[in-house]
Amino acid sequence: MIPLRTYLNPDEMPTHWYNVVADMKNPPAPPLGPDGQPMGPEQMGAIFPMNILEQEMSSQRWIEIPEEVRQIYALWRPAPLCRALRLEQALGTTAKIFYKYEGVSPAGSHKPNSAVPQAFYNKEAGTKKLTTETGAGQWGSSIAFAGQMFGLPVRVFMVKVSYEQKPFRRSMMQTWGAEVFASPTNLTEAGRKALAADPECQGSLGLAISEAVEEAAADKETCYTLGSVLNHVLLHQTIIGLEAKKQFDKLGLYPDVVVGPCGGGSSFGGIAFPFLADKAAGDKRANNLRCVAVEPTSCPTLTQGAYAYDFGDASGYTPLMKMFTLGHDFMPPGIHAGGLRYHGASPLVSQLTHEGLVEPLAVPQLATFEAGVQFARAEGIIPAPESCHAIRAAIDEALKAKVTGEEKVILFSLTGHGHFDMASYDKFFAGKLEDFAYPAEAIADSLKHLPQVG
Amino acid sequence: MIPLRTYLNPDEMPTHWYNVVADMKNPPAPPLGPDGQPMGPEQMGAIFPMNILEQEMSSQRWIEIPEEVRQIYALWRPAPLCRALRLEQALGTTAKIFYKYEGVSPAGSHKPNSAVPQAFYNKEAGTKKLTTETGAGQWGSSIAFAGQMFGLPVRVFMVKVSYEQKPFRRSMMQTWGAEVFASPTNLTEAGRKALAADPECQGSLGLAISEAVEEAAADKETCYTLGSVLNHVLLHQTIIGLEAKKQFDKLGLYPDVVVGPCGGGSSFGGIAFPFLADKAAGDKRANNLRCVAVEPTSCPTLTQGAYAYDFGDASGYTPLMKMFTLGHDFMPPGIHAGGLRYHGASPLVSQLTHEGLVEPLAVPQLATFEAGVQFARAEGIIPAPESCHAIRAAIDEALKAKVTGEEKVILFSLTGHGHFDMASYDKFFAGKLEDFAYPAEAIADSLKHLPQVG
Repeated sequence: MIPLRTYLNPDEMPTHWYNVVADMKNPPAPPLGPDGQPMGPEQMGAIFPMNILEQEMSSQRWIEIPEEVRQIYALWRPAPLCRALRLEQALGTTAKIFYKYEGVSPAGSHKPNSAVPQAFYNKEAGTKKLTTETGAGQWGSSIAFAGQMFGLPVRVFMVKVSYEQKPFRRSMMQTWGAEVFASPTNLTEAGRKALAADPECQGSLGLAISEAVEEAAADKETCYTLGSVLNHVLLHQTIIGLEAKKQFDKLGLYPDVVVGPCGGGSSFGGIAFPFLADKAAGDKRANNLRCVAVEPTSCPTLTQGAYAYDFGDASGYTPLMKMFTLGHDFMPPGIHAGGLRYHGASPLVSQLTHEGLVEPLAVPQLATFEAGVQFARAEGIIPAPESCHAIRAAIDEALKAKVTGEEKVILFSLTGHGHFDMASYDKFFAGKLEDFAYPAEAIADSLKHLPQVG
Repeated sequence: MIPLRTYLNPDEMPTHWYNVVADMKNPPAPPLGPDGQPMGPEQMGAIFPMNILEQEMSSQRWIEIPEEVRQIYALWRPAPLCRALRLEQALGTTAKIFYKYEGVSPAGSHKPNSAVPQAFYNKEAGTKKLTTETGAGQWGSSIAFAGQMFGLPVRVFMVKVSYEQKPFRRSMMQTWGAEVFASPTNLTEAGRKALAADPECQGSLGLAISEAVEEAAADKETCYTLGSVLNHVLLHQTIIGLEAKKQFDKLGLYPDVVVGPCGGGSSFGGIAFPFLADKAAGDKRANNLRCVAVEPTSCPTLTQGAYAYDFGDASGYTPLMKMFTLGHDFMPPGIHAGGLRYHGASPLVSQLTHEGLVEPLAVPQLATFEAGVQFARAEGIIPAPESCHAIRAAIDEALKAKVTGEEKVILFSLTGHGHFDMASYDKFFAGKLEDFAYPAEAIADSLKHLPQVG
C-alpha cells in the first residue's frame, strides 16, 4: 500500500543541486548590457557577490549544497511527498495524484529554498547587508528569515499599498528581525523622485526594485537578492524535485506528468528540472514524461508572449534577458495569483519551453480557486492561490485519465499554504472574483515596445 | 548525533489514546446537575451522542483510535518531534530543548486531534449536523475541517466582533464548507433575546455557546461539540504525548520536564498525561519528572483560582464541574493569548494539579511574546501566542540549567503556528501590549459568586 506521506530521513537529503544548463541542447542565451553586448559577472558585481554570479553563469551539472545551508534546510526539509488519495477518490479517477508540499517551511512557501543559500553566499562573500523588494511579502519574509539565520541584516522595500493593506507578512518579516519600509521611501533617489512627483504615491513593484537595487549599488557591502527568474534561484529550487525523485524511488513509482505553477519560474524549475535530467540521461522511465508549466490566462507569458530579449523590470534598469515576455511595460490586472503576475519568465524555463521540453498551459482564475477549494475539502491543506494553478491542471489530467482508464501518475508542486491569502478566498466565496483572459491585441501592443537587439 | 527532526513512520502512529482517569489516585469528581446531584450520560444526551458520553465517563486505561480517525490523522500525523538546537545555542544552555510541533495540521493547531474523532463518533451515532461556538476561530476551523472529512454539515456561531474584525479564520471555515454565523443571530431564542435588548450587540463567547447548545438541544439529530475542558477532548489529545514518547524512545532519551500552555487544558493534558502514565506505572525514568502547566498572569486559573464546583460557562447553563476556577463571571482583560482566557480549567488537569502531579506556573504577556520572537529568530517557526507561554517557561528552565550546568531534557508543546495571530505580534512590536496581573482582590470578589454545592 502506498503511504499517504513519504518522508526522507534527514541524512537522505540531497547533497547537490542540479543545474539544467549542463543538459540543455543549446547554451543559454547570455544576458545583454545596455550596449547590446553580452554581460559578464564583473558588470553585475555591483549588486551581487561573485560567488552567486559564478553560480548564475555556471554550466556544471551538480553543485554541492554547503553544509551550513543544509543545516538550515533541515529545519523543515526534507519536505513530504504526499499522496492525494482522498482527492483521487473524490474525482473517481484511475490516476494516482502526488504533491510535494513546500508549505512546511517557516515562511510557508518554497521561497526559502533559495533565500537561505543566497543569505549564506552573501555572508561568505563578506556582504554586510541585504536588500530586496516585496509585493505581498512572500519573498520578503523568506529573505528576512534567511538573513536572520546567518546574522545578516535585511532591508525590505515593500510596495506601500501592500505595506498598509496587508500588514501580516510585514509583521512576519519584523518577527525575523528585518527592517521593512513602505516604498517609495526617502532613503533612495528613486524613492525621493517618486515622492516629489506624487507625495501620496502608493508604490509599485518596479519602483521597489529600483529602491532595493539603488541601495545595493550605492554601497559595496550591501547586496541585492531576487526570489525568482535568475538561473541561480532555479538551481537552488531543484532541491524540491531531487527530493521528490528519491521519494518516488522508495515507492517504486515514476511520474508521467509533472505539474507546477509558473510565474517567474523558480518553483516550476525546481520540481521539473530534476526529472528533465533523467530524460537527458536517456532514462526510459522519462521517455514520455510531460512537464506542464501552469500560468494564469490574465498573465499568459509562456502561452501568448514572444520569445525575445527584454528587460527584467518595468523601468528597463536590468540587463536584457532572452525569455518569453509580454513586454516589460505589460500591466497585469489585479488578479489574486500574487506570484504569477510577472511579465516575463525565467530564461531557463523559457528556453526549455521554446525547445519543446516544457508544455505551457494557461488557466482562468475562477477555475483555479474551484480547484483549490476542492483540494482543501479533500486533503485538508488550504493552498496558496499560486499553487491552485497547479492543482487545476493536475485535476484536469486526472479527469482525462478517468475517461481513458489510465493509471497515470501525476505529480504537482504545492508551493505554499494560503494562510496569508484568505482575503482572496473570501472574495472568491463572495463572488467578487472574475475571469480575465488578456486580449491578444493588448499583448500585441505591449510587444511593440520590446527593445531592439542585434 | 541527535537529528533536528524525529519522525515516526505512518505505521508507528499510536493505535490507542491514553485515559489518565485509570491512573488517578482518586476517582474524578462527577459533574453535578442544577439540583446538585451527580449527572449521568442520559442527562447530557440532549446535546452529545452516547458514544462520546461513554468516553467522557470512561475509566478504561487505553481506548482504541478508530481506523477511520487514524486515516484522517494520517493527513498530518505523526507530527515531528523537533530539537531546538539553534535556540539552545542562542541561550548557551547545557539543557536539550525539544518541542512537539502541532502546527502541521491543516487548521494549524492541535485542535483537530479532537475535532476529527468528535466528528467521526457523531457520524457513527447518526448525528446529521454539528454545532459549535468559536471566538477567534481556532476551534471552529478545526471542527469545520473535521466535519468536511466525514461529510457532516457544521454550523459555527462566531462571536460577532471576531466575525467582522478577523475574517480570515471565517474564510478558512467556509473553505472547508462550514456555515458561519455572526453571533448573536436570529436563529435562536438566546440570539433573538440579545438582539432585542441591543440590536448592535457585538456578541460574546458565552452567548455563542448558548446559541450552539440551544440549536443542538432543539433537534435530536444535531449535536454540540466542544474543543477543550471535557475528559474526552483531553483523551483525544493524548496522541501528542504518546507520539512524543515513541520519538524519545528512538533517541534513547526521556524528558526531565514537560511543559505545555494551559487554558481549557486539552493541549497540556495531551502532551503531559502519557508521561504521567509512566510515573503511575513506576517507570524509574519518570521518578523526578515535572509537568508544568503555563497560564497567563492575566487569567491565573490554576495559580490563583479556587478548587471548587463551578459552571463551565458564563451564564450558568452547563453542569457544575469541580475544577480550578476564577469564578464563572470572571472577565479576563483583552490580552492576546486567545485560547488561554477561560475562567476555569479542565477538571482532570485541575485534580492532578490539586494532587500535586502538575505544577502550575503563570507568566506575564510581554515575556511570552519576547520568548516567541526569540524562538522564531532561532528556529524559524512563528509560534501562536498560546504556545509562547510554553516557550517562555521552557527557556526559563533552560536558563536555570545553564546556571547549574545540568544536561536537563526539556520537552514543550508547540501547539500551533501564529499565522493568524500576526496582529498580536504587530501590537507587540508597536509597544501596544501591556502586562497585566489580575489583582488578588478582584479574584476574591468573583470567587464570592461560586455556586453553593452540597
